[in-house]
Amino acid sequence: MKSNVKKAVVLLSGGLDSTTVLAMAGAEGFLCYCLSFRYGQRQEVELARAQRIARHFEAKQHLVLRVDLDAIGGSALTSDIAVPKDQPRQSEDDIPSTYVPARNIIFLAHALSWAEVLGATDIFLGINAIDYSGYPDCRPEFLEAFAHMAKLGTKAGALGKELRFHAPLQHLSKREIILRGMELGVDYSMTHSCYDPVGELACGHCDACLLRLQGFREAGLEDPAGYVG
Amino acid sequence: MKSNVKKAVVLLSGGLDSTTVLAMAGAEGFLCYCLSFRYGQRQEVELARAQRIARHFEAKQHLVLRVDLDAIGGSALTSDIAVPKDQPRQSEDDIPSTYVPARNIIFLAHALSWAEVLGATDIFLGINAIDYSGYPDCRPEFLEAFAHMAKLGTKAGALGKELRFHAPLQHLSKREIILRGMELGVDYSMTHSCYDPVGELACGHCDACLLRLQGFREAGLEDPAGYVG
Repeated sequence: MKSNVKKAVVLLSGGLDSTTVLAMAGAEGFLCYCLSFRYGQRQEVELARAQRIARHFEAKQHLVLRVDLDAIGGSALTSDIAVPKDQPRQSEDDIPSTYVPARNIIFLAHALSWAEVLGATDIFLGINAIDYSGYPDCRPEFLEAFAHMAKLGTKAGALGKELRFHAPLQHLSKREIILRGMELGVDYSMTHSCYDPVGELACGHCDACLLRLQGFREAGLEDPAGYVG
Repeated sequence: MKSNVKKAVVLLSGGLDSTTVLAMAGAEGFLCYCLSFRYGQRQEVELARAQRIARHFEAKQHLVLRVDLDAIGGSALTSDIAVPKDQPRQSEDDIPSTYVPARNIIFLAHALSWAEVLGATDIFLGINAIDYSGYPDCRPEFLEAFAHMAKLGTKAGALGKELRFHAPLQHLSKREIILRGMELGVDYSMTHSCYDPVGELACGHCDACLLRLQGFREAGLEDPAGYVG
């Protein structure tokens, strides 16, 4: 029966985290509507990966929306600012130059809009509090505040529907995420994490690569992604 | 001194409300950065008006961003659903078909992103609780929740900067908005409110036209906008 199917909007970047989240949402029985963004990111290669991944996991639909973050600028991911390499974070309060101002807020706002149109009340995203690399919009208290705002600011919320934001990786380490994904049969060679790729190859030195490589190392596995050199 | 100038991002649709807000922000001494959106709206004529208005009020910059709301659909403003005409709201809980799912959330998220890049901590918008036409994302409690979420989800907030969301029309009637604007020298012939215009002319029968016409009537003034017929 169609009315028994639970629909979910899944934010899918094509990276390791969001791909694992998609596998988890599917394993929970959700009919998945994947949402990706073209926002002038250096790593636009991730969109082709997202498309392949959405197909692989039999998503009901995959929508790629254009967002003009490059017109706003202010981040190493969308402008001429250099992506930092081999630089461990200085402190908890250190927010890296790859932070894109309000990006997750913009992405979640679109997910919310699509969920309303689809009649979905579940939104999945791959934010992570442990490996969050200093991004304020990956913290649990941020997501709670977003959910509260969404309840007040949407028709669905005004009509009393409960909107649920699932961040199942929130408290997992990269190692745990990888092990969970492997259990669900995720093929991580399909995923792309690097902020500054050369063609399809990952640089191996940006924050995203360093965290990913460390995760595989700690899981006792080899990262199947292709790296430069 | 440049450091003494207070910068503000002003959401500007080119309508009566947001134009009044721009005049108010200017009168408060803010250096205004106007932000408009091309989102596949029927009333795209409003963007040309917004441009003219931003110039008139000597905005420092006017950015028009593309947002893919038409790919998401679900509203009479962005899809084939008909715009309701001469239909007074049935009840407080009645949300009209011109509601665009999560639109204000998406717009505010972009404003927040730009404010972070500009180093601005003030955002102005023309939402209104009295004439709000049943849109949940125009309620004061929504804006408060958005501000709280923004504080937690941005670098500016994480660094302890206070982000201020100004909705100076929140508790004004349309009549009061118009009278306030007239005091500040707003020329309302420049503004466009209609959801379903014919060329540059307003239809006179959609919710937006009805509220506007009533406001001018109650203010004892004639609406200088051009209407069909």
